[in-house]
Amino acid sequence: MIIVLKPSTPPEQIQLFEEKLCSDYEVKVNRWDGVHSTVLGLIGDTHTVDTEYIDAQDIVESVKRVQEPYKKANRKFHPENTVVKVSENVSIGDGSLHIIAGPCSVEGEEQIVSIAKSVKKSGATLLRGGAFKPRTSPYAFQGLKSEGLDLLKIARKETGLPIVSEIMRTEHIDMFENVDIIQVGARNMQNFDLLKELGKTNKPVLLKRGLSATIEEWLMSAEYIMAGGNDNVILCERGIRTFETYTRNTLDISAIPIIKKLSHLPVVVDPSHASGKSSLVEPLAMAAVAAGADGLIIEVHNDPPHALSDGAQSLTSKQFDAVAGKILALKEALK
Amino acid sequence: MIIVLKPSTPPEQIQLFEEKLCSDYEVKVNRWDGVHSTVLGLIGDTHTVDTEYIDAQDIVESVKRVQEPYKKANRKFHPENTVVKVSENVSIGDGSLHIIAGPCSVEGEEQIVSIAKSVKKSGATLLRGGAFKPRTSPYAFQGLKSEGLDLLKIARKETGLPIVSEIMRTEHIDMFENVDIIQVGARNMQNFDLLKELGKTNKPVLLKRGLSATIEEWLMSAEYIMAGGNDNVILCERGIRTFETYTRNTLDISAIPIIKKLSHLPVVVDPSHASGKSSLVEPLAMAAVAAGADGLIIEVHNDPPHALSDGAQSLTSKQFDAVAGKILALKEALK
Amino acid sequence: MIIVLKPSTPPEQIQLFEEKLCSDYEVKVNRWDGVHSTVLGLIGDTHTVDTEYIDAQDIVESVKRVQEPYKKANRKFHPENTVVKVSENVSIGDGSLHIIAGPCSVEGEEQIVSIAKSVKKSGATLLRGGAFKPRTSPYAFQGLKSEGLDLLKIARKETGLPIVSEIMRTEHIDMFENVDIIQVGARNMQNFDLLKELGKTNKPVLLKRGLSATIEEWLMSAEYIMAGGNDNVILCERGIRTFETYTRNTLDISAIPIIKKLSHLPVVVDPSHASGKSSLVEPLAMAAVAAGADGLIIEVHNDPPHALSDGAQSLTSKQFDAVAGKILALKEALK
Amino acid sequence: MIIVLKPSTPPEQIQLFEEKLCSDYEVKVNRWDGVHSTVLGLIGDTHTVDTEYIDAQDIVESVKRVQEPYKKANRKFHPENTVVKVSENVSIGDGSLHIIAGPCSVEGEEQIVSIAKSVKKSGATLLRGGAFKPRTSPYAFQGLKSEGLDLLKIARKETGLPIVSEIMRTEHIDMFENVDIIQVGARNMQNFDLLKELGKTNKPVLLKRGLSATIEEWLMSAEYIMAGGNDNVILCERGIRTFETYTRNTLDISAIPIIKKLSHLPVVVDPSHASGKSSLVEPLAMAAVAAGADGLIIEVHNDPPHALSDGAQSLTSKQFDAVAGKILALKEALK
Repeated sequence: MIIVLKPSTPPEQIQLFEEKLCSDYEVKVNRWDGVHSTVLGLIGDTHTVDTEYIDAQDIVESVKRVQEPYKKANRKFHPENTVVKVSENVSIGDGSLHIIAGPCSVEGEEQIVSIAKSVKKSGATLLRGGAFKPRTSPYAFQGLKSEGLDLLKIARKETGLPIVSEIMRTEHIDMFENVDIIQVGARNMQNFDLLKELGKTNKPVLLKRGLSATIEEWLMSAEYIMAGGNDNVILCERGIRTFETYTRNTLDISAIPIIKKLSHLPVVVDPSHASGKSSLVEPLAMAAVAAGADGLIIEVHNDPPHALSDGAQSLTSKQFDAVAGKILALKEALK
Repeated sequence: MIIVLKPSTPPEQIQLFEEKLCSDYEVKVNRWDGVHSTVLGLIGDTHTVDTEYIDAQDIVESVKRVQEPYKKANRKFHPENTVVKVSENVSIGDGSLHIIAGPCSVEGEEQIVSIAKSVKKSGATLLRGGAFKPRTSPYAFQGLKSEGLDLLKIARKETGLPIVSEIMRTEHIDMFENVDIIQVGARNMQNFDLLKELGKTNKPVLLKRGLSATIEEWLMSAEYIMAGGNDNVILCERGIRTFETYTRNTLDISAIPIIKKLSHLPVVVDPSHASGKSSLVEPLAMAAVAAGADGLIIEVHNDPPHALSDGAQSLTSKQFDAVAGKILALKEALK
Repeated sequence: MIIVLKPSTPPEQIQLFEEKLCSDYEVKVNRWDGVHSTVLGLIGDTHTVDTEYIDAQDIVESVKRVQEPYKKANRKFHPENTVVKVSENVSIGDGSLHIIAGPCSVEGEEQIVSIAKSVKKSGATLLRGGAFKPRTSPYAFQGLKSEGLDLLKIARKETGLPIVSEIMRTEHIDMFENVDIIQVGARNMQNFDLLKELGKTNKPVLLKRGLSATIEEWLMSAEYIMAGGNDNVILCERGIRTFETYTRNTLDISAIPIIKKLSHLPVVVDPSHASGKSSLVEPLAMAAVAAGADGLIIEVHNDPPHALSDGAQSLTSKQFDAVAGKILALKEALK
Repeated sequence: MIIVLKPSTPPEQIQLFEEKLCSDYEVKVNRWDGVHSTVLGLIGDTHTVDTEYIDAQDIVESVKRVQEPYKKANRKFHPENTVVKVSENVSIGDGSLHIIAGPCSVEGEEQIVSIAKSVKKSGATLLRGGAFKPRTSPYAFQGLKSEGLDLLKIARKETGLPIVSEIMRTEHIDMFENVDIIQVGARNMQNFDLLKELGKTNKPVLLKRGLSATIEEWLMSAEYIMAGGNDNVILCERGIRTFETYTRNTLDISAIPIIKKLSHLPVVVDPSHASGKSSLVEPLAMAAVAAGADGLIIEVHNDPPHALSDGAQSLTSKQFDAVAGKILALKEALK
């Protein structure tokens, strides 16, 4: 950590500050005197040092980390890829490509079972479906709730596909006991209480990137879960908010290789939410695979125009079949 | 609501769609045939119409609302200003200017009581203090929790200042029973379950704008609370995330007059979090008052360099005294 | 074009406004009266209608285009792909993949000739090199100017590769007479005078997207060139500015399929400037090809650490050889 | 300047790099060896050091400036405020508040003269008017060009108000000889050739901030002008591009106090372009004055609904009179 001090700081104050740093944290301090400013360098275990605290000192002009502020999610301290074992046959991060497919919302038994069968046939290895839905409007459909989870389990029984569903509050963790992957939505990426509680379980967690979260903040949210003892974190890039309005969000394709460099966690991509348009799902999915993603999460609906939520970005089963075929062929070609 | 259909949609399909709209919602449909496309206009109570559903129809090219999607927060349906009565002497939105001041985190009895006394003397009318702290890093100080709330109540008893503190999970609502204003932080602005639960109480809620929330989304989050029956919502602009990195966030000063136009709810401004720098608090606070804010929320600390969180943006009591003096004089001059 | 009028506009004023619209533009006006507002629909040739003018009317609440504001660049009016013929062997937009490679700045004859030979061997079909450099700092190297163009021509003679170089002012157009593709940089995307002058030539123009330009604005800049009579426009996505600071810009991968849908112009991608990091060039280039780009423009340097500009994002010739191999194999596999 | 080296860089390479830095630039190098990385500190005249060059070195992980990259625009090296003398009576930056008012476009003699007289009466001290207009669409009105400048001069003669108009290309500099302040628009903020040519004159230049320019980039563009010898630079904040679409841009009110801290140059604010809505001009203008702006630039039109450009954001003369009255009263109260 590099600390630039304000010009003309009295030497005694610098000395006191150095002593305080050494006593508060497990660090050593180096110091240099420049023409216009003095710079301190902290060496040691700096990821627990609170940069806001440092920045608040009267004598400090700016602070810059050299080490990343996350440790458990950091590839430097864990060079091998993490592989999240979801079921007997599904391990995410092991070099294979997993397609998680299914409707935005679970709407009924027939719907979810028939979609599950259909996407399995097309090559999907996991089933997604929303039971609790975060909707911008209080007047929009909010999901079937616990009944939705029950229907997902029926679909799992019928197809063998592990299931993925979104959680919205800490009190529901018990209810998700039997869900294979618990999804944390973009709007809850910094719901730190929820992250902490998930850290106490050993469930695989699909952690979506917040609409305006930096990659570092996203990894810090993974760190919250891992700090509690749960290493089964799968990151999910789903587009960030920018000035461009043609797409609902802007897919940050660079996030894939960056996560691969900075972290050992697997990363999947959600081209449906990133674009908000079904016609963009195929090209974005292809791009994600070419850039090295471990998986994709794609919205599929038997009847998009009548879907109760997010229909505009859903593929029909037939469209999905074509897209999945191309994606899997691309993955094969890249080997 | 204006619905643009895709070119060459067969007339029968348009007819079927029109009928469906009329039966699903309390609307009438007008239609008009252009050279390249047909356009439908929905007239009636469109705020419950789900634009995503419409957008998902095969035959739809785009949808645009003419009416805002919020109703209870909408000035059109509630022309007079809402005044949130917090205590005998404090009503926010009544034309007076309220300054909410206090430390980022409550750290001890002596600290909070002495700050409370000091900010009261300088002109603050409410006391803020964090007991539960949303921190980016799991390794940073997370607040004194329920003990922090108890200390705030002691400070309230000593000074008479109503207290404001942030809630982070639904299970804590009972614990905040005796807090005068419950704050919902920027990261929880779309924690819809929390908003719904707060809607069932009658507590004043200070709803911070999310880092990347549009003004419409922010008002929709207010609508969540109000849809539950709680009209005591105070909006708080605290900066949005942009490409500029000199400040932590970019204060969206335009949000003040826009909220005043679109909604009847009071709006306060947080210059401390918006900038992340104590030296910017005064000019941003002055700007907010000149632009018509109903109040300010300012971080004040007895000893910023030793604050356990967010010290860099806190004013000392002495600095706050000077700033509050200027702010109140400006408010007086604007009358 | 849909025009929403303010509530309670007197009918006479609406009538006058309708008449004015019909006389000023070649349009017909439809009208609908809703509960809260009246809506007008313009039918006809609306791309010349100035929405700002409409929006300025006292009685207007909002305006929305149904038709895009660009015409010559619009696929609706020109369904087949435009193919830009650059030389005997190089046509961009014909379904093949072109790699434009070379140094950020031309620095000397030996440098540019040796890079040209090397990238040709690796599979590049065009040579890029900056002679006039737009640098943020007035103290940074500004390019070899006309000498740089001369050196590029020598390299072209030696290798047969057509050359691409950036123009920075209208007075230089003559000097670029003999350059095969004239590049307009991101910072000049809305230098409308430059665009107009280029519209009077028949040279292929590589039009980079501005750092904060929407896709519509980018196509409007293409329209400026085409309105002058020059249809040889190649669009280049090179990343947009967002809040994320890990990369210099955020590559908007969605822009590729969107441009393909909205326009008939070819689109190439610049993974070097988009990321600012040489380690990200390969994954972003792969993603761009998988998403359907017509070409790539990649910075290659014989000696990146000693490059006079943008070394951090340049590949060595050896790295480029490996990347080009993978890119071309991927293109082959996608056929 | 702080340079963090990659882990495990061989000591000989570090030594060579240090020597190169000392010979290339007028700096001394300090070095310090951490647990995970080695850090170099450059001391001396680092504003000419090219960080991109440093960043391109194989052995470099990251670079951070401690000193700002601009020198002539930097308050550290020029502590007193710059006062730009525009005419006998108008000096911008001297503590008084100047209002620049006038139409977006000059449209005719009667129009510009009558607006000039009217805004003068209301308290404006300079007249603005566009002769060359940067329009997004090639089909929109592009200004009266040199005739527009002539009409402005007539209005100046009639009222004594100095005139401000926008330049769009280097070849026009002679034509602007007799214009009092030459405006560089947001889209040309990084048209470096234009900046260099303006640096060779001694005309006051009003430099608008680019839509997505950081404050540092904006000051670097001022530096381009000043590096040529022209110190008469007035900065103009006019809103930045963000995700919020309610306003055309987001006024970055924080830029005012930040510029005052970092630079000695005067700063004015354009509330008309920042918001794109006439109803927001008053509150944003008030906020700008309260935050310390040296001036305002406001669009005023005799007949906004018939203005040929940007009518939606223009005030009528009557509205302007009311706004100017409030602004000047506020300035008085702040003294």
